[in-house]
Amino acid sequence: MGSVFGKKLKISLFGESHGEGIGVVIDNFPAGIAINMDNVTREMNRRRPGGNFSTPRKEADAVEILSGMLDDRTTGAPIGAIIRNTSQHSSDYSRHYDIPRPSHSDYPASVKYNGNHDIRGGGHFSARITAPLVFAGALCKEFLRQKGIQIAAHLFSVGDFCDESLSEMEYKSYEFLSTKEFPVLNDTSGEAMKAVISDAQKKGDSVGGIVECGIYGYPAGVGDPFFDSLESVLSHMIFSVPAVKGIEFGDGFRMAQRYGSENNDCYELKDGKIVTKTNHGGGIAGGISTGMPILFRAVLKPTASIYLPQKTLNVKTGEETEMKIVGRHDPCVAVRGVPVIEAATAVAVTDALLFSGEA
Amino acid sequence: MGSVFGKKLKISLFGESHGEGIGVVIDNFPAGIAINMDNVTREMNRRRPGGNFSTPRKEADAVEILSGMLDDRTTGAPIGAIIRNTSQHSSDYSRHYDIPRPSHSDYPASVKYNGNHDIRGGGHFSARITAPLVFAGALCKEFLRQKGIQIAAHLFSVGDFCDESLSEMEYKSYEFLSTKEFPVLNDTSGEAMKAVISDAQKKGDSVGGIVECGIYGYPAGVGDPFFDSLESVLSHMIFSVPAVKGIEFGDGFRMAQRYGSENNDCYELKDGKIVTKTNHGGGIAGGISTGMPILFRAVLKPTASIYLPQKTLNVKTGEETEMKIVGRHDPCVAVRGVPVIEAATAVAVTDALLFSGEA
Amino acid sequence: MGSVFGKKLKISLFGESHGEGIGVVIDNFPAGIAINMDNVTREMNRRRPGGNFSTPRKEADAVEILSGMLDDRTTGAPIGAIIRNTSQHSSDYSRHYDIPRPSHSDYPASVKYNGNHDIRGGGHFSARITAPLVFAGALCKEFLRQKGIQIAAHLFSVGDFCDESLSEMEYKSYEFLSTKEFPVLNDTSGEAMKAVISDAQKKGDSVGGIVECGIYGYPAGVGDPFFDSLESVLSHMIFSVPAVKGIEFGDGFRMAQRYGSENNDCYELKDGKIVTKTNHGGGIAGGISTGMPILFRAVLKPTASIYLPQKTLNVKTGEETEMKIVGRHDPCVAVRGVPVIEAATAVAVTDALLFSGEA
Amino acid sequence: MGSVFGKKLKISLFGESHGEGIGVVIDNFPAGIAINMDNVTREMNRRRPGGNFSTPRKEADAVEILSGMLDDRTTGAPIGAIIRNTSQHSSDYSRHYDIPRPSHSDYPASVKYNGNHDIRGGGHFSARITAPLVFAGALCKEFLRQKGIQIAAHLFSVGDFCDESLSEMEYKSYEFLSTKEFPVLNDTSGEAMKAVISDAQKKGDSVGGIVECGIYGYPAGVGDPFFDSLESVLSHMIFSVPAVKGIEFGDGFRMAQRYGSENNDCYELKDGKIVTKTNHGGGIAGGISTGMPILFRAVLKPTASIYLPQKTLNVKTGEETEMKIVGRHDPCVAVRGVPVIEAATAVAVTDALLFSGEA
Repeated sequence: MGSVFGKKLKISLFGESHGEGIGVVIDNFPAGIAINMDNVTREMNRRRPGGNFSTPRKEADAVEILSGMLDDRTTGAPIGAIIRNTSQHSSDYSRHYDIPRPSHSDYPASVKYNGNHDIRGGGHFSARITAPLVFAGALCKEFLRQKGIQIAAHLFSVGDFCDESLSEMEYKSYEFLSTKEFPVLNDTSGEAMKAVISDAQKKGDSVGGIVECGIYGYPAGVGDPFFDSLESVLSHMIFSVPAVKGIEFGDGFRMAQRYGSENNDCYELKDGKIVTKTNHGGGIAGGISTGMPILFRAVLKPTASIYLPQKTLNVKTGEETEMKIVGRHDPCVAVRGVPVIEAATAVAVTDALLFSGEA
Repeated sequence: MGSVFGKKLKISLFGESHGEGIGVVIDNFPAGIAINMDNVTREMNRRRPGGNFSTPRKEADAVEILSGMLDDRTTGAPIGAIIRNTSQHSSDYSRHYDIPRPSHSDYPASVKYNGNHDIRGGGHFSARITAPLVFAGALCKEFLRQKGIQIAAHLFSVGDFCDESLSEMEYKSYEFLSTKEFPVLNDTSGEAMKAVISDAQKKGDSVGGIVECGIYGYPAGVGDPFFDSLESVLSHMIFSVPAVKGIEFGDGFRMAQRYGSENNDCYELKDGKIVTKTNHGGGIAGGISTGMPILFRAVLKPTASIYLPQKTLNVKTGEETEMKIVGRHDPCVAVRGVPVIEAATAVAVTDALLFSGEA
Repeated sequence: MGSVFGKKLKISLFGESHGEGIGVVIDNFPAGIAINMDNVTREMNRRRPGGNFSTPRKEADAVEILSGMLDDRTTGAPIGAIIRNTSQHSSDYSRHYDIPRPSHSDYPASVKYNGNHDIRGGGHFSARITAPLVFAGALCKEFLRQKGIQIAAHLFSVGDFCDESLSEMEYKSYEFLSTKEFPVLNDTSGEAMKAVISDAQKKGDSVGGIVECGIYGYPAGVGDPFFDSLESVLSHMIFSVPAVKGIEFGDGFRMAQRYGSENNDCYELKDGKIVTKTNHGGGIAGGISTGMPILFRAVLKPTASIYLPQKTLNVKTGEETEMKIVGRHDPCVAVRGVPVIEAATAVAVTDALLFSGEA
Repeated sequence: MGSVFGKKLKISLFGESHGEGIGVVIDNFPAGIAINMDNVTREMNRRRPGGNFSTPRKEADAVEILSGMLDDRTTGAPIGAIIRNTSQHSSDYSRHYDIPRPSHSDYPASVKYNGNHDIRGGGHFSARITAPLVFAGALCKEFLRQKGIQIAAHLFSVGDFCDESLSEMEYKSYEFLSTKEFPVLNDTSGEAMKAVISDAQKKGDSVGGIVECGIYGYPAGVGDPFFDSLESVLSHMIFSVPAVKGIEFGDGFRMAQRYGSENNDCYELKDGKIVTKTNHGGGIAGGISTGMPILFRAVLKPTASIYLPQKTLNVKTGEETEMKIVGRHDPCVAVRGVPVIEAATAVAVTDALLFSGEA
């Protein structure tokens, strides 16, 4: 397990989907930061299942803070927080030791842990483990906001339908995104995406999607080449989010078809501030923040848990078999991926900022 | 700086483009591994500038190993290796403290280091620093080969032209790629790509490209969720390679438009071995290797150093100015990016393997 | 805060003396290890206050395991465990923000955290935080025992009175130490030490002591020069235990007065095994384990919390003042330091073993 | 190998005694620090063998800086530096694969590296590897001095003779220590120590000693409980220095015989500054610096390489044999240990300061 992240701000996650509880320890969070617990609760609610476009499973996700805070203010000591597991149906899972679910961790985890892992609900691999990550991210967002740094993410695409893009140049009151059940900029595109998801759901299938995320107000000069470029530490974190299979910064893969003269971001002075005229590079050059908005997109694969029958293998007997997955699963994990990716981003850029000594 | 990578195999890079020398320390490389130095030299030559599709600059890149080896066999002690810098034209660079090159590290590095960084040739941000990384990767490839693990990369696309894909299912004698000046699978596509590069070069411009990389024979069960998924550690490393702006595993961004029923990789028994019928996931599920080939693509932006005039800013005076970059620069960094990405991959997957205790 | 320890087995501690609860996350504990929970409970009880030579404070110290175990067997996922705080008297402490207790963390912590730290009961600096460390150590001892490795510690000295030494050459059924309220080898010496402690307690004072610890059955070849010598990683851990102010391996400080010819440990063959004739070096040479018992002694300062009046400073007003500490405090922290040092040792040597890939 | 140290300032050492060269990479050294190279050279000379009380072996120890500096000023990029090996007599060593030297790394290293290690001159375990550490320390001392922080060490004892102690309360122009061949405060004691060393040398023997080190001007509030207390990180580093077998902070082991009322350091105001009236704790309380001088003593064992015949084992044949060590070896490693421990200390406290964000 590599359940610790960070160079200065260290995050230790623990928990399994169907164990007693899940949680997080946050080490080196700055002392004396006032935390608006309503904001934290709102972030937890954004990730929580229950909407039309997520699993109908109810998870209370009530966070209990055990240490590191006094009167809603951080003390500088490690922040320990737990969330009880309350809504599990464990009977469904034991057969997956023998018959691993396609594109799940079941089989590789069996190899890694010699079959000792807790497979119920995906165990430690469950997307449920992102709940304490969202909590950690919510604290980081409070800290960042007090530094003038805002993070916004939205569902950029599902199937063939795309939302508008976040601004590459400036922050635009994106707070409203965090209050939407279906977090898109353009509701017409959103309706088209919803239709794709509903269609997949009706068929017992699932569908992939892309989340776009922007970090606004982040200072220039953060990031540690050679190996700890800002892209490196952000991607490290974002690929920790279950289902993410790709990430691109700025114009990303479109750059393969582009000339340098089109792609370079030239400097200019704007309102007395050094900015770039364009932001193809997504706010990072040479691995270091330029002071422009940092932008990336991450693709989340279609949920591996589908209700359609799948032909797979009984690894004990060696016989091919057909499996039907039961339980309650999101038809499109990218939807709830939006707040998770925001939170993960908040943790990563807070760590980079603290390690740099800037904050 | 974050010039140390790894959890068990630790790599420390150092050096600037126009300093005295560059090098690497490799800590915790296993003892008793015989190294074929001809293979190491071939890898160094692959990265070295000088071909038609790279910069005409000549760099000898002769590696001197100072420690950690006896009679071409590793001792278990840290391997220290240096490469002298011999071919620098430093006069060209000092003006870039004031007039930062677009999409280079010049400006953000000035902020980070308060203008104390060595800007000549890009300093520590130079792609030249990948030479010792290629050396480290070459040693790792020797180690991996002895474990039955092969790494192959090729230039997948430039502009609108694509090469064939590496096999998702099995290794196919890809050694020939490492002997080609222009490392593609299909030479017809290769000629088209070359034409795009030559065209850009003639115009004083540059062009982007995509490198595809496969890891074959890697055992199932390696990778450390939550945060150190194999995708996380590979992407962390690959984004360290200058110019990389995106990475995707398996089918990556194509998954956004796909249904779970299309995307899931079902298990079967083949020649007595548990495999998947398809490999959309690129050999990784739940962050852990499945035993299938691990596949990813990385996009490299068009070289930021172009000869066309660019409008940019004198950050000292605040005046807009036009700059023309001189010197010798690759028209498409993706070409020489191929051996660099192979090497970086070799380091990352060796570290993951050693940390897992598997090797 | 640096509340994370370890290179492979990572331990994250959290909690404050008077907060909601304390706990630990243990990452990378091997999968499939059967844990005898009775042994774990016994270790917790050894550290728990309540005996004659410790504070009369009652702490239930009931550990709740939230994750990482199924049916008393480890799953390979992070083990998260919490202990509720139940017996606090917080009213006593707030004045210590202004009037820091001598030789406590109060003043330096105020500087570090700008006065935001939780000072109640010492907060995160409280010896109470060793409870989850003892839990982590108890799991490690289960793992080590299954590898044939035993750890034993005892109270070596208090005041001018010394116990016998642990054997430098072989393990001698030291299990009985873990069942003694006053863990010494020689009860006559033990009575003398008890008298010193009782005398100090009656006077409202405290007294220091030395704990000796032996690790038996540890394989040769573990330890990572240059910086991660076995002495380095053990001392790093042992100095984390509150009150420890010195450590020596083998004959330690006595070596200053000794000749090489007296001090060197020569090899011989004994029962077909390579051993040393003497073990002055405490089982470590060149930073690596020799296969002989690893022995060290750690000194614990007299408890800083004494009931005698002390002249100190009101740091807000700048006036000298007299303080009397109230509350319940151990007259000799070295007594309960014995199981804590055993546990800390178990964690450190387990991490070294796992990192080496030996286990 | 664990040849990387540090959380922010990362030091990677490499090299073997009789290889091509040794060196160090220093990552994250602050940018823009002017380095007085004469000071650096003086530090290198202090460690260099050649004096009456060290080995007659001559090592030029000329440091070549390859990167990270421009015009004697740091750039912020990793500082790579090498030292060529020039004065080796390698023929002496090969027999030690079979006949390990007592109290040397030979045998445990053979187990660890399966006999693949470079045993010549002790290989990577050689005290010669401290030369690049002294270089790194010299740079750190330049940085610290500019922050008003001074480090001083001296030979505190050899055999039964002790020097005076460093001041626990304030810095006293200890620069003169760095210019003395035999670094003691009191020359009368020094002569007695010299006599002990000369006597041991004449007999073909060696003798141990204690080095005392003080850090003056270090700010209050640095150190990271729980695990990264200042004692933890300093001891981790100091035990990396070959031959160190014990360390104590402040009054250390004397505290075992002491009452809390004697040992506590009470606060007072002196010249407007919060200080302690005494400094038994050695400038650290609760693992955090108090602002008082930080003081510790480290014991170095008698040099394991002695010329007297020793009975030991041929581990290949299983026969006992007598060995006589040849070559040139210090009769008391503690003498040259003084500048090494100063340097190691400088690295450790610089890292702690940088990590804390204080500098």
